[in-house]
Amino acid sequence: MDPRTYVEKHRGEFVAALKDWLAIPSISADPARSGDVRRSADWLAAHLADTGFPTVEVWETDGMPAVFAEWPATDPGAPTVVVYGHHDVQPVDPVEAWHTDPFVPVEQGDRLIGRGASDDKGQVLFHTLGLRANLAASGASAPPVTVKLLVEGEEESGSPHFAELLKRHRDRLGCDVVVISDTTMWSAETPSMCVGMRGLTDCQIDVYGPEVDLHSGSFGGAVPNPARVLAGLLAGMHDADGRIAIPGFHDDVAEVTAAERGLLARLPFDEAEWLRTASSTAAAGEAGYSTLERVWVRPTAEINGMWSGHTGAGTKTIVPRSAHAKVSFRLVPDQDPLRVQRCVDAYVAGNLPEGVRATVAFAGPGVRPCASDLESAAVRAARAAMGRAFDTEVLFTREGGSGPEADIADVLGAPLVFVAVGLDDDRIHAPNEKVEVPLLLKGAESAAHLWDELAAALRP
Amino acid sequence: MDPRTYVEKHRGEFVAALKDWLAIPSISADPARSGDVRRSADWLAAHLADTGFPTVEVWETDGMPAVFAEWPATDPGAPTVVVYGHHDVQPVDPVEAWHTDPFVPVEQGDRLIGRGASDDKGQVLFHTLGLRANLAASGASAPPVTVKLLVEGEEESGSPHFAELLKRHRDRLGCDVVVISDTTMWSAETPSMCVGMRGLTDCQIDVYGPEVDLHSGSFGGAVPNPARVLAGLLAGMHDADGRIAIPGFHDDVAEVTAAERGLLARLPFDEAEWLRTASSTAAAGEAGYSTLERVWVRPTAEINGMWSGHTGAGTKTIVPRSAHAKVSFRLVPDQDPLRVQRCVDAYVAGNLPEGVRATVAFAGPGVRPCASDLESAAVRAARAAMGRAFDTEVLFTREGGSGPEADIADVLGAPLVFVAVGLDDDRIHAPNEKVEVPLLLKGAESAAHLWDELAAALRP
Ligand SMILES: [Zn+2]
Ligand SMILES: [Zn+2]
Repeated sequence: MDPRTYVEKHRGEFVAALKDWLAIPSISADPARSGDVRRSADWLAAHLADTGFPTVEVWETDGMPAVFAEWPATDPGAPTVVVYGHHDVQPVDPVEAWHTDPFVPVEQGDRLIGRGASDDKGQVLFHTLGLRANLAASGASAPPVTVKLLVEGEEESGSPHFAELLKRHRDRLGCDVVVISDTTMWSAETPSMCVGMRGLTDCQIDVYGPEVDLHSGSFGGAVPNPARVLAGLLAGMHDADGRIAIPGFHDDVAEVTAAERGLLARLPFDEAEWLRTASSTAAAGEAGYSTLERVWVRPTAEINGMWSGHTGAGTKTIVPRSAHAKVSFRLVPDQDPLRVQRCVDAYVAGNLPEGVRATVAFAGPGVRPCASDLESAAVRAARAAMGRAFDTEVLFTREGGSGPEADIADVLGAPLVFVAVGLDDDRIHAPNEKVEVPLLLKGAESAAHLWDELAAALRP
Repeated sequence: MDPRTYVEKHRGEFVAALKDWLAIPSISADPARSGDVRRSADWLAAHLADTGFPTVEVWETDGMPAVFAEWPATDPGAPTVVVYGHHDVQPVDPVEAWHTDPFVPVEQGDRLIGRGASDDKGQVLFHTLGLRANLAASGASAPPVTVKLLVEGEEESGSPHFAELLKRHRDRLGCDVVVISDTTMWSAETPSMCVGMRGLTDCQIDVYGPEVDLHSGSFGGAVPNPARVLAGLLAGMHDADGRIAIPGFHDDVAEVTAAERGLLARLPFDEAEWLRTASSTAAAGEAGYSTLERVWVRPTAEINGMWSGHTGAGTKTIVPRSAHAKVSFRLVPDQDPLRVQRCVDAYVAGNLPEGVRATVAFAGPGVRPCASDLESAAVRAARAAMGRAFDTEVLFTREGGSGPEADIADVLGAPLVFVAVGLDDDRIHAPNEKVEVPLLLKGAESAAHLWDELAAALRP
């Protein structure tokens, strides 16, 4: 039976299982829900065992448990794939904005509504349907690649124990490629594959001048003004072309290829509609790049906040003693957040006039950017698999922000490919989250083809 | 009897009168003290009548009353002088920081302690002693110039009704020169004359971008960030030499003369001590100017405060919807606050990228700068008078901020000269205000000579 026939035939059973799972309120950020997150892990473990995975384990962490499952390929020389997803969900506030109970999943036509429907339970679950479809098509008792599933329970809380978990189980997680199923496509009509996510590092810059606020009549013009110094530092972070001007910042930026730019340009992007979403009357950014390129493939330095001196009503003619800003940097491959932090440190330290000192405090080690190589065998295979499922050419997208994906690739030493069928209007992290069931079936069909395509592409 | 002998002989009587006046708590900013401000005006009127002024009037305003007195010269062709001072005083908060009751004046050696001792009752009162000394020396029954005193009652509250008062009585106030006795000298050892005060205009700049705060992962890099635009506007207000770079801002700046710069350089300025007072580890300002020049003869653009976006604890990776700054401009002759406001408006409007709008709101019409012409007959005469009193060369200073002086010169159409003997450490506007009685006597002696010098210098 071909995969499409198989998944369509099992739609009812698949949706019933997903509704079962969605009924468990596995909100990792809510300590009162920790029992539910554990129930969610147990539900998934049982479902994976039912699916036929010979090995299924619940992996404990210092926080919420993850689920691991493995189904070895028939051929011991076949490649190995780790599929990453998460079984925890976002909080549901403001709950009064939901039209249905977030944990009583409801079907409305082709839509399934409930917290986690798209992010990420629906997208995890299409893999079990896809794997059954693959076996039904091949008639084999095992997949053509060794499939390992790793489904964490704290992604929506910032994956605080995930890196440690990866390192502890590194031996069990050995693989040739990591498949991430936690992103979106351009649209239902324009299926696409994410091939990169921006990283992030952010800091607070504190600039200090004279020890007290000074009267600007008596001292103004003859002592350094830390607000002016800060304004200079912030303004100097970009050149006239809108390109980041911090020395060394661009050293590791991998320029996007002409091939990828060409494919991005083929996306049916409606800038006027995008600007309406942004409530902005104009686009603005680095010269020479389109809006999509600016949010996906170019790094940014963004002032998130600033404050200094007198901010109340009326006038206070002072030279303020200090000035402060919060600045975040979105990073692109192959930038390293720690190296960027050193560039920012040096930039600030190198642009302070006499009589002014400054500190730069980074919020943490930052999030690394990640990207797939468009020319790699894994991306070609995954794109072909999705193309077979959607009966059309699959384009490429990226995402402006990211989670723990780069850490997975780094710890496991394997390239990432993103196979996912969420939509930007699925309202993930918002009230009334939904998923399009036909797209989940296309995801299952993609997954069914994916193991064959990867087996062929990665065979040594 | 020469003026020095006269004023020294009448020291006791002079100090007793001043203590009497200082006991009246004429705080114009305190509505509960309005009766005391009126009592202060009445006290002064009586004292001026006792001194011999043929005309003494209390002039009402919509606020607190001023006192006017006139003593015509013997020679009807003699020049006319208006002496300006004020009889209201600053509030006394924090009153617990005073070592004596602010309104029970106390002599400690040569010092007289009490609110208003230096600013400005002591400096108003030396004029009556000086005028008596002048008459004692000449033996005449009237001064050699027509002396008009105008002593306002709301200077410490921003002189809200003073311009109106000047205009209403313009005919009575006709004069050839205005003598201001409400400033300070360099030091007791280095007597000096103020020859200029900076003006002021200040504004709030509000910059608006997208209508709501945006997520920097989804939108960062492709929409205008108003905080970045504001930082650019603020940083762009100065060039690399620290000179204000707002187009047109310098058009009316009168460059200080080499002669004045030479005299300013002769002041025994201790920059290290000045920096300690400023609690700054370095001086900073416009290239090519000394610290004193920077605070006295050069205009400034000073950021008094700014705020935008997330200013609390932690991280919020947003593109903020708006950014705000308060900026004040110290002005020097011949800058006009209204013209500077137009330059700032045009600068902001001309440097906004698409998708960003801004408003610039000025706090009011601003304060005009003022200056005396060092080569004028009036300044030469006043400098000679002070030189005779202090037995030494009188140097020049300026002040970094100012009050209503420019308006007086403007409405009366007469040049200003500053004859005053306060010191920067008199703690005016602070607890424990004091005055050096020997300097008030030198002020009286200067005033005694001043009428002769002015009569000679200004005789048609
Ligand atoms: Zn997710
Ligand atoms: Zn005063």
